[in-house]
Order: sequence, then C-alpha cells, then structure tokens
Amino acid sequence: MKITLAQINFIVGDVDGNKEKIIEAAQQSKGSSLVVFPELSLCGFFPHNLLNYSDFIERCEKAVDEIAKKCDDIPLLIGVPARNTSGKGKPLFNTAIFLHQGKRQIFKKKNIGFDNIIETNYFEPSDDNNILQLGCMKVAVTIGSDIYNISEDEFLMTNRVDDFEEKPEIIVNLAADRFDYQRAAKRREILRKSVLKHEVPLIYVNHIGGNANLIYDGGSMVFGYMGYVVKSLPFFKEDVATFDCELFISMKKEDEQVILSKMELIHNALVLGIRDFFSKQGFKKAILGLSGGLDSALVIALAAKALGPENVLGILMPSQYSSDHSISDAIASAENLGCPYHIVPIRTAFDAFDETLKPIFKDMPFDVTEENLQARSRGVIVMAISNKFGNILLNTSNKSEASVGYGTLYGDLCGSLSVIGDLYKTEAFELCRYINRDKEIIPWHTINKPPSAELRPGQQDTDSLPDYHVLDAILYQHIECNKDTKEIIAQGFDETVVNKVVRMVYRNDFKRFQIAPVLAISPRPFAMREMPIVKK
Amino acid sequence: MKITLAQINFIVGDVDGNKEKIIEAAQQSKGSSLVVFPELSLCGFFPHNLLNYSDFIERCEKAVDEIAKKCDDIPLLIGVPARNTSGKGKPLFNTAIFLHQGKRQIFKKKNIGFDNIIETNYFEPSDDNNILQLGCMKVAVTIGSDIYNISEDEFLMTNRVDDFEEKPEIIVNLAADRFDYQRAAKRREILRKSVLKHEVPLIYVNHIGGNANLIYDGGSMVFGYMGYVVKSLPFFKEDVATFDCELFISMKKEDEQVILSKMELIHNALVLGIRDFFSKQGFKKAILGLSGGLDSALVIALAAKALGPENVLGILMPSQYSSDHSISDAIASAENLGCPYHIVPIRTAFDAFDETLKPIFKDMPFDVTEENLQARSRGVIVMAISNKFGNILLNTSNKSEASVGYGTLYGDLCGSLSVIGDLYKTEAFELCRYINRDKEIIPWHTINKPPSAELRPGQQDTDSLPDYHVLDAILYQHIECNKDTKEIIAQGFDETVVNKVVRMVYRNDFKRFQIAPVLAISPRPFAMREMPIVKK
Repeated sequence: MKITLAQINFIVGDVDGNKEKIIEAAQQSKGSSLVVFPELSLCGFFPHNLLNYSDFIERCEKAVDEIAKKCDDIPLLIGVPARNTSGKGKPLFNTAIFLHQGKRQIFKKKNIGFDNIIETNYFEPSDDNNILQLGCMKVAVTIGSDIYNISEDEFLMTNRVDDFEEKPEIIVNLAADRFDYQRAAKRREILRKSVLKHEVPLIYVNHIGGNANLIYDGGSMVFGYMGYVVKSLPFFKEDVATFDCELFISMKKEDEQVILSKMELIHNALVLGIRDFFSKQGFKKAILGLSGGLDSALVIALAAKALGPENVLGILMPSQYSSDHSISDAIASAENLGCPYHIVPIRTAFDAFDETLKPIFKDMPFDVTEENLQARSRGVIVMAISNKFGNILLNTSNKSEASVGYGTLYGDLCGSLSVIGDLYKTEAFELCRYINRDKEIIPWHTINKPPSAELRPGQQDTDSLPDYHVLDAILYQHIECNKDTKEIIAQGFDETVVNKVVRMVYRNDFKRFQIAPVLAISPRPFAMREMPIVKK
Repeated sequence: MKITLAQINFIVGDVDGNKEKIIEAAQQSKGSSLVVFPELSLCGFFPHNLLNYSDFIERCEKAVDEIAKKCDDIPLLIGVPARNTSGKGKPLFNTAIFLHQGKRQIFKKKNIGFDNIIETNYFEPSDDNNILQLGCMKVAVTIGSDIYNISEDEFLMTNRVDDFEEKPEIIVNLAADRFDYQRAAKRREILRKSVLKHEVPLIYVNHIGGNANLIYDGGSMVFGYMGYVVKSLPFFKEDVATFDCELFISMKKEDEQVILSKMELIHNALVLGIRDFFSKQGFKKAILGLSGGLDSALVIALAAKALGPENVLGILMPSQYSSDHSISDAIASAENLGCPYHIVPIRTAFDAFDETLKPIFKDMPFDVTEENLQARSRGVIVMAISNKFGNILLNTSNKSEASVGYGTLYGDLCGSLSVIGDLYKTEAFELCRYINRDKEIIPWHTINKPPSAELRPGQQDTDSLPDYHVLDAILYQHIECNKDTKEIIAQGFDETVVNKVVRMVYRNDFKRFQIAPVLAISPRPFAMREMPIVKK
C-alpha cells in the first residue's frame, strides 16, 4: 500500500487557489491508497475571523464538492472547517474530510486550543472515534495537537490516540506546527514518543510557507513501528511524496533528515518568510533604509536572497552625524549583492523641521527630539519612495532594540514587515557570519565595527545600553525563560544592569505594540508575549 | 448583616498601590460582615504575562499577608492569583481569598476562558465547592464568568451555581466585565436571570477604570430574591458602599440605576479611558493635531474634559490645501475649550521633502505619495513637540477610516492612544451633538461642513468613500454582525458599494495592525477581530 504526503504552500483565505493545488497534488498521486494534506489545508492556516463569515465556509464546502468530483478515484484526506449543525457549542469543527468514490467521512479535532488558544473561539472539540477504514487497515485520523500531549499530566489534554476504543494500525496527523529554531528537533521527539508509546506507525503532514509573522517549515515525515523515520519531506520547500507502507517495519532510520544548525534554520526560515510575505500578497519589490550598520546589511542580504537583488532597493540617508564609513559600508552592502540604491541626504528635511519648529523650541538644547527628528525624516523619505514606486518597506530593527525600546516610532520602526525583529543583536551578528561563511557578502567592516545609531556626534549603542553580549543574555533570561530580576541577578549578572534592562523592557510595550508583524523564529517572539500597556 | 462592595480603580501590576487601596477601603468598612473586591483586584485586570514572573506572584502573596495583618478584624474577599502547587495543569488559579481573624479560605474560579480566552494560558479551572460560611449564612463565592452562562447549552460552560452540592443563601461574584455601550443593560439581565433561576440574592462587584484600550465601568450592584436591584454603585466612578442584607427581601427596585443613553455612556467611558491612560502612567499633558475637522475637534473636547483644557495642546498644521475655515474652525475648537494651541505650517517641511526627492521622483505627477507626505510631515512635527515637551500624542482617527484604511501610517495614524478609533464617523457626529447639547463646545461649522482630508485641492471624503451613513451601515453589518457581502446586499445595499467597502476592510488589516491601542466602546472593537495580514 502506498500513501502520499502533500506538503503544500497554501495561502490563507485563498480557497480557490488552495483547491487547485490540492487537485493538482491529488492527480499527481494516482495509485496512492491515500493522499494526506495538512490541517485546515483548504482554507490556509490560520484563517482567524474569516471563519466567522458564512460565505467563507460556503466557499470551502463548494471547493470540497469540486475536489470530490475531479479526484473521485483518488482517496484524499483534506483539512477543512465544517459547520457544527448541532445547535450546541462553537459554530465550527476543525476537521479532516476523507473523499473517495462518492464516499465522504468526516473526522473532527479534539484537542482544540492546546497550542493555539485562539482556536477555541471558533471550533467545538469532538470526542468521536476517528477511525478510517482504509482497505483492511484501521487508520486513526488526528489533527494537529490531538497527538502532541506526551506528558502524563491528566490535567492537560490527553493524547487522542489514548482514547480510541480499538487500537489503530496507522496514525495519520494533519498538522500546522510553526517553525522556531528548536522546533524541528522537539517535534520529532514528541512524535517519536507517541509512536513508541502506541507502537503504531505515524504519518505526519505539516504546512510549509510563511503567513505574515508565522513561518511553517514543513519537514513532514513517516515513522515506522520502531520509532525510526522511514520517509522525510524537506524543510522549507513544497513537496508531494509517496512511500510504501512496507517501510513501516524497518529496523533503522531509512530517511531521517539531519536537522540544520540554528543559523542555517533561521536563515532559511527568514528567506521563506520574506518571499511568501511578498508573493502571497502580489508584491515584488522591497525597499529599506541602509545605514551602513549590521542590521540593515543583514536584512538587505536576506531580502536579496528571497526576492532577487534587482527587486530590493536600498536607500542611504546620511546626516551630518553619519561617518564616512557608514556611507561606504552601506554602498558596499548593496553593491556586493547587486541591489540598486539611492543616496538621499536628510539635511534639507532636518533643517526645514528645525526652522519650522524654531518659534516653539526657541533655544532649547538638542536632545532626543532632534535624534528622533532625524530618524523620522528618514521614515518619511523611505515611505515616500515606497508609495511612489510600490516597493514594500522592510523594517530592520532587531529583538534587542525592540526589547529595550532603542528605536524611534514612525522613524526606524516604520515598515510593513520586521525581518529580524525576533533575533537578538548577537544572533544577528552570528547570522551575518553564517551568510559570509564562504565569501564576503555582508561587508566585514560592518560586522566588526562598534554599533552606533549615529544620531549625535560620536554616539555608540554602548552609551545607553550594556554590551550586547550582556544585554542579550539578560533579555534571554527575562523574555524566553520568564526569569524575574532576582532570579537573573542570582545567575551572576550585575544588579544595576539587570534592573535597568528589565525596567526598559517593561516600559517599551507601547512601542512594540505599534510595530509591523515580526517574522517569528524563536520559541518566544514578542507577538506571543501579551503585556498590558498601562501598568506599574 | 451588612456587606460592603468595594468598586475601586486598580492599576495593573501595581500590587503595592492596589494593596494600599484595599486596606483603605477595608478600614473604612469596619462593622461590615464582609467587604467584597472585584476579580484579581490585588494585581489589576488583566495582568497577562506579568503572571509568568515568580516575583510578581510573590509580591501578591506578601501583599495578602500584609492586608491580613492590617485588617485582621474586617472580613475581606479579595481577587488574587494563587500558585497551583499540585504539579498538574496550568501554573496558577484565579482565586478569591477570604481573610478574617487569622483565618484564610481560598475559592477558585471554574469557568476559565469563557469571555477572555487568554486566561486559559495562566489559570487552571477548579471544581471545588466554593461555599464560604459567613456567620449562619452559606455564601457561594464565584468569580467573573462563573455565573455568566445563562443558556441551556450544555456544550458551553455551565453556570457555577448549578453545580453546588447545597444551595447557597447568597451568591457573591467578583467581576471584571469591560464596558461596551450595550453591556450595562445586558449584564444586568444576565445577572437577573441567574438570580431568578436560583432564587438566591446576588452581590456583584465590578472593576472601574481604564486600562489602555479596555474600560471598566463599575456599576456594581446587589439583587434581592425577586431579582430586583436593591443597591447600586455608580458607573464610571470609584465607590465603597455598604448595604443591609435585609434589603434582599424587597419586593421592588430599591436602587436600580437608569442606564444612560448610548452617547452619554460612550462620552463617560472615553473621558475615563483618557484620564486613566494618562494618570496611571504618570502623564499629565496631551497633544494632538487640530485639522479643523470633526474628529480632532471631538478628541480635543474629550481630552480637555479628561485632563483639563490647560493640559491639552492643539497643533494646527495648515498646508497650501487647507481652507480658511479649517484654520478658523480649529482655532475655535481650541479656544471654546480654553486649550493652548500653536500654528505650525507644513509648507517648509513639505517643500524640503519635495526638493530632497526631486532627483528620484523627477517629473512624476502628484499622487497619493504627496498626500501622504503632508500627513507624515504633520506626524513628524507633532511628535517632535511631543518629545520636546513630554505631551502624549492622541490619535484622532475614527472606526470608519480605520475600517477602510482612510489614513496615513506614520502620518495621521500616529499617536499613543486612539480615542475615537472604535466610533464610526456617524457615531462621532452624534457624540459631537451630545457634547454640544447645552451650548456650542465643538464649533457647529465643524460638525456641519462636509468632511475632507484637505490633502489636494477641493478634496472631499466622498470622492473616495460612499456617504458615511451608507458606509457605516455596511461596516456595522460586516464588522459587528459578521455579515458577508451576499448577506449585506440582500439587505438592500448597492452591490458595487458593498463589494468595494468589504474589499477595503480586507485590505487594510496591515494598517490597523500598527495603530495605537484604541479605547474600546463597542461590542466588537478591531482589537477583538483577529485577522490574518497575509491572505487572499
């Protein structure tokens, strides 16, 4: 018996386009006993409030009918939202629908909200016995987190497979498990434990593709009875692949992928994230400010990789405080890649604001106002070019800056997509070195010089922030590990520095509230950190 | 027997400050048999990720100890987070703690996530039998949504009171129920039904105060056996009030408050929302751009009411496209209130950008770029004055504009708080008329002239948008009522207009993503409408 895994890049809400992709993959897989697609494949993941609209559900229903008609001879298992017509509970079920020769069978998700609590707004959990009889095989159909609970904690949701009345012969899981740099390894171990516990082979099909801030990395796979991976699909790429169930009995890793290094994973995820953000919205061209610093040099390199260098326009906006090397480094970062660039000095604009505000500011001294004025003049210029030529602005701030509020709202925090906003500065350094592993793509001088915002003479980041190695270590403890100041100080960090850093994190939720979607690559991006804005 | 309701304005995270308020209210209430505070009173509502930090919970624990010591002779019921030490499930319980003469009893919330799914990230539900023996009375202690389910839908969470083994003699509810303009009436009916069903008197204590976007309106009350309100606390105001339980048997509405008109409710909520946004963060002074249009005239009137006119600075930023009446109307809107204002023309800044961008734009025609340039020059100016003098920028865009993306990111969409972003334009009109009910506060000319962004000669909003009455009716159906285009057209609206409007709503999630917190006054503010940014 042959089964096909269809790891496809779907677009949220694009029911018609997704339907075509499903039909195409199905028709490629004739002869398979089953073609499995990921969770909510037909509507894309996650559709959020689109699910509230009746015509959206109707479009899904019609698409299912059309798929059933066009692929009648191919047994399919597709993720779709379905109406809850019982009159009780939430309006929908999160389902997998089996289609074959006029037959339809619906399998409903149970563990709603285990790793995505937003689901509970839309979907009613179900306790149905989800067994699909496939020829002589009993297949347990599970959706996403139905099988993620491997703890013995009875208070958490159970693993779906524990509940089945009769033991299945295969488990299928339609998944939507987002990327983070630890996830591929963790996910494989969670699934393997489930296989070993139940001694049943597992077919796991994940989404691939970027959907605004969330990136799905694919990596679909099949586990045999012994917990070995016997078939793998690639990470960060679409693939439709068929395997023979005879592999289930294999006593070795037939096809287990090596999990890439952290920087390689992050690199591939960000490139995919940028590419899909553009292609799924019909955008082609990007624009960004090039300061000569590391962050913008890194973002232009990633964007050039994702979109082609000819589609990424760099804008150098020097001021009187810009050093010579920032201009030459910025030019080098564009020219190394072959990206077009413009030099647009901000002096005229800055002076105009200075003159305009003179009657109000009189002789008040230069302060953060004038620093922000420079950043905001740059924001206006780069947005004007963006508006005129239709290039989408990429934001270049990093997670260390976002954490402590080192950035100007409506200035350098402008942009439609934050590319490296989930990378600490030290990780951004590391990623630059990874990109330069074979040859200089990002100018080494940019990587090696001390970071500076260049908003006043001789300014360096370390004037207002601790050294990035210290800063990032404290931030990691506080944000990723939820450690409070006392706990961080107990690890040996300087008390004054820790208190200062944590205070800065607490005070800058209002800035983070207004920035663009951030490509999520860590286990704990700020988007997942709900914080009250008004607090003491 | 006398019981006290303590409807107090708490600050999220300010455990020490909240503790002092609790002690003060308790000491005012000596002689009461019970003083009841709202849900999570000690830590403010809702603390979100603060709950993840061990020292935060520890501070709550210490504060409880101190309250117990200082108010030993006063029986108190306080809302606090408490650790779940069972080792199973979520790390905390959402509890009410009873303190009296060294005795402590803890009551845990059951219906976690009924109306605030975020709760489920932190709190484990509990099935304990929450009965407090108060003298000879059995008091059922419930928290928030524990008693909100009045449906017969067994799939939804149950009403907590249905579960108790023995029938209580009083129900107490520690609540945190946010304001919307329909809520006070709905809430009273929900609670009344619960009372009539169980035939038990109910004491309901709600939060009061603004916490960034969410506003709590108070309106705590006591229901007697017959479902009549026998004691009311005011809306939008702190109050600590004691009543005698003899009132429970009353056969009439002893003290049921009239629920104000929609505009009066919205007005009071917005004033409270602005005031608390400032006072809770230690800010005093506001700033906003005054265009001479209705929205900014409305916001300055609300801000002057909330903060005092001397603390609200209006900035007029005329361009060559500004009409004479916009300047005179803007001046009148400040002068009527007694607010200071500056006139800062944007011509110099606009010309500087024009000159700066000339080498790139060459002879390309005036388009939306130049319109945005004007809005963004204003953004830079008003933010510079904000930075220099420490005035916090109020955003003045309305819900109709936010819906269809009629506004410039980093331009007129700048600001730390969106005051009227949850009011449709027609509601903004209505609110102006309410404010002017006794005398002209907002210039009538501003209210009566056709709305215009004045970014090009002779521009009017109706050039690109349908008449606001039509637009708002369509938006209301689509956003508040989740109606799709087909359903809206079936109500008699023009097909082309509906399709155009709904398309605009779908395309502008990226703009709404980046705007400031919006004071929520409707049942469905955009903050509660989760929408994918990348979609088709």
